[in-house]
Amino acid sequence: MPQAEVGSVSAALAKLVATSDWSDISVQSHEAKRSILNFFATALGSAQDPAVSSALNALLPFSGRGTSSIIGRRERLDALGAAFVNAISANLLDYDDTHLDTIIHPTAPVAAPLLALAEAGGHSGRDLLTAFVLGVEVECRIGNAVSPGHYARGWHITSTCGIFGAAAACAKLLGFSEGEIAHAIGIAASQSAGIVENLPSAAKNVSVGNAARNGLFSALLAKQGYTASPRAIEGPLGWARAMGDDPNLEKLTGGLGKSWEIAKNTYKPYPAGIVFHAVIDACFKLREQLGGETGDIVSVTVQGSPLLLARGDRPVLSERDARVSIHHSVACVLLLGAAGVQEFSEAVVFDAAIVRFREKVKAELDAGLPDGAARVTIRTASGKLSETVMAARGSLADPLSDADIENKLRACASGAAWDAERVIDAVWHLDSLADVTGLMNSSCTHPS
Amino acid sequence: MPQAEVGSVSAALAKLVATSDWSDISVQSHEAKRSILNFFATALGSAQDPAVSSALNALLPFSGRGTSSIIGRRERLDALGAAFVNAISANLLDYDDTHLDTIIHPTAPVAAPLLALAEAGGHSGRDLLTAFVLGVEVECRIGNAVSPGHYARGWHITSTCGIFGAAAACAKLLGFSEGEIAHAIGIAASQSAGIVENLPSAAKNVSVGNAARNGLFSALLAKQGYTASPRAIEGPLGWARAMGDDPNLEKLTGGLGKSWEIAKNTYKPYPAGIVFHAVIDACFKLREQLGGETGDIVSVTVQGSPLLLARGDRPVLSERDARVSIHHSVACVLLLGAAGVQEFSEAVVFDAAIVRFREKVKAELDAGLPDGAARVTIRTASGKLSETVMAARGSLADPLSDADIENKLRACASGAAWDAERVIDAVWHLDSLADVTGLMNSSCTHPS
Repeated sequence: MPQAEVGSVSAALAKLVATSDWSDISVQSHEAKRSILNFFATALGSAQDPAVSSALNALLPFSGRGTSSIIGRRERLDALGAAFVNAISANLLDYDDTHLDTIIHPTAPVAAPLLALAEAGGHSGRDLLTAFVLGVEVECRIGNAVSPGHYARGWHITSTCGIFGAAAACAKLLGFSEGEIAHAIGIAASQSAGIVENLPSAAKNVSVGNAARNGLFSALLAKQGYTASPRAIEGPLGWARAMGDDPNLEKLTGGLGKSWEIAKNTYKPYPAGIVFHAVIDACFKLREQLGGETGDIVSVTVQGSPLLLARGDRPVLSERDARVSIHHSVACVLLLGAAGVQEFSEAVVFDAAIVRFREKVKAELDAGLPDGAARVTIRTASGKLSETVMAARGSLADPLSDADIENKLRACASGAAWDAERVIDAVWHLDSLADVTGLMNSSCTHPS
Repeated sequence: MPQAEVGSVSAALAKLVATSDWSDISVQSHEAKRSILNFFATALGSAQDPAVSSALNALLPFSGRGTSSIIGRRERLDALGAAFVNAISANLLDYDDTHLDTIIHPTAPVAAPLLALAEAGGHSGRDLLTAFVLGVEVECRIGNAVSPGHYARGWHITSTCGIFGAAAACAKLLGFSEGEIAHAIGIAASQSAGIVENLPSAAKNVSVGNAARNGLFSALLAKQGYTASPRAIEGPLGWARAMGDDPNLEKLTGGLGKSWEIAKNTYKPYPAGIVFHAVIDACFKLREQLGGETGDIVSVTVQGSPLLLARGDRPVLSERDARVSIHHSVACVLLLGAAGVQEFSEAVVFDAAIVRFREKVKAELDAGLPDGAARVTIRTASGKLSETVMAARGSLADPLSDADIENKLRACASGAAWDAERVIDAVWHLDSLADVTGLMNSSCTHPS
């Protein structure tokens, strides 16, 4: 593929960010709102997780004035700290959004610092949406240019590319010049970090939180006159090559402003690995055919691509295993008729009936099925039933409806003090909000 | 080379850090004090640099209680912020120390967070020295295991490895358990960043400051229960391989506790690239032979290895160029009899007589000379003089004396309000100081 002629990647991206306004991105604003609604859903769902509480405890003694809300909590932090913690809670269970070409979870690193800044500085919802769409564009284009090698060699792409989106978005919201935006992007290259080896541990959260926090920090430093190499991303000793990649410059800067990556965003209906969603959908259809009568099931066979088997044919020793298990996905849907946050919690994962049912499930290769598809066959004493799903709910071919995302937020927010309906209403009306204070207040437990 | 059998690199390093105490490292404590004295010299020398002021301005609104001093300034920040800024000023001109096997500048990322923590928490000088030696050990061993490929592919090794030393040292000073230290090291792997492409810009400072700040942050998170993969460094999708390196585990964990990397630390007598130091030394000898009479010089020829020519045979368009210029190194020593901070400042670099003298200097390859050596030959109307230096002042073969480092600090601190003699005295007596408050106060301009 011919490489685009560009003076500097940072400069080209900064030009797009600096020169685009609401009129350029408004057609994308509905998808942006869906992304932000999904962000609040997953952040509210994880707000009480110990990993969020621990990060808060570590940061509280080191916070300036608490200008910014922590979603789902009563504590407040300065904007840098709030960006860190809210990005963690939004991404914690990998239940947030997915840009399928790169497997970036795009919203957590970009929306978290924008909301923290907008609350601290009184920025409008429309300015926030504009900056958000542009930040996601920068983040995903950089991810496109180094995919799939980047993730495969061990880089946690949401962290390593998210910081560029955060830097660009924050610099845009703060009204910085084109040159300052370019330097913010280049400074982010010196802070980009995060490894796949740490994904099964809490250390994963640190690189996601840092992407949000240090993206904003990059912008603040650029405003103070800090500079970066114009070729920080693509230079011979720059970010992409140090990380082992020969960047595809055409994907980075070709057709800038003519297509938008936010349009390719997807949202998960289930808090499980995305390759298991077709399995879950097939099981819901089978359960309906059985009228919920699952006592007769003798065995279940799941067929799919090599990817499905490689990711999901494993023993379930923890809740984390359950979220990437073919066997658990089948068991909870067929037995309980649900696959929400509750069904992947410790109480359900180690429930005796569920454990026994997982034993009835076998996985088989069907190389004829593409990645993302699955066939599930149930055998009972009286015969067998089969369902094949080619495009799972939530994929680009079968996207979640607005109401689905609203219901996801209601489910994640259930049982706590915040007002889910006010959050939903505020997000749908973001483009007419003079500031985001009301939205953030609705998502927080404030002292009464 | 056979690879060492290790359960986990983080665990092996953590065991050394947790189980070593003053009795194990006291024999290294004098070299540690020399390193810290040199750290104060370079930090004081750069304290008023715009890059330091800008970083401070960016961080001041986001600081918790100002528990910790900024060296050479009156502002104070919380320990995370002070770690960031003091690491920047110590490293700003690359005039700090050098671990020659890796080209890590070891002290800035490790001493900056330790001093900030020790001031905030009232830790003793002896505990600080113990933690410092252990932090440098972790930092340089990880650097050894990935050198020279790591730096060559674009990683700024002081930043990327410094964070591990900072994490280990801070966890030691805070008295954490072996397991917590191991997790702190592993969490650091998810924050390690910094690219060579950005070295000629202020963005370089960001990764150096982050190494200090985020190393401390790694320790604080480990104390809050955050964990990391045991194989965060050496695993198949871990830090070393993501960064493109197959780590040499023997260098990482072989003979732990039997040799100490701090013993190999070196200190620069001149604020210029280390390969130019032999050129400068030769010029000092020639100037002495000429009795300071340099008006007759017709031409100067500098001979050295391919490395010397590759690094230093360049036009001088900025102060930064001057610090890596054969021509300027020769001009300032022969004409002015000095090669200190002043001689690499804008006023001298663009002084008309200096500019003219640089034109008289030629560089020539002599493949017979090793890296780090140089021959300088002066031609005058009446004849020629030549000096060859095989081991420059400040190298391991000709180390700076304690008095040399004291004088370096006096020169860097000249003309400002702090008390150089009190800093020098406090550093030499660190092992008997009950806390470091007096040392930090001596190095700061406090409101009178």
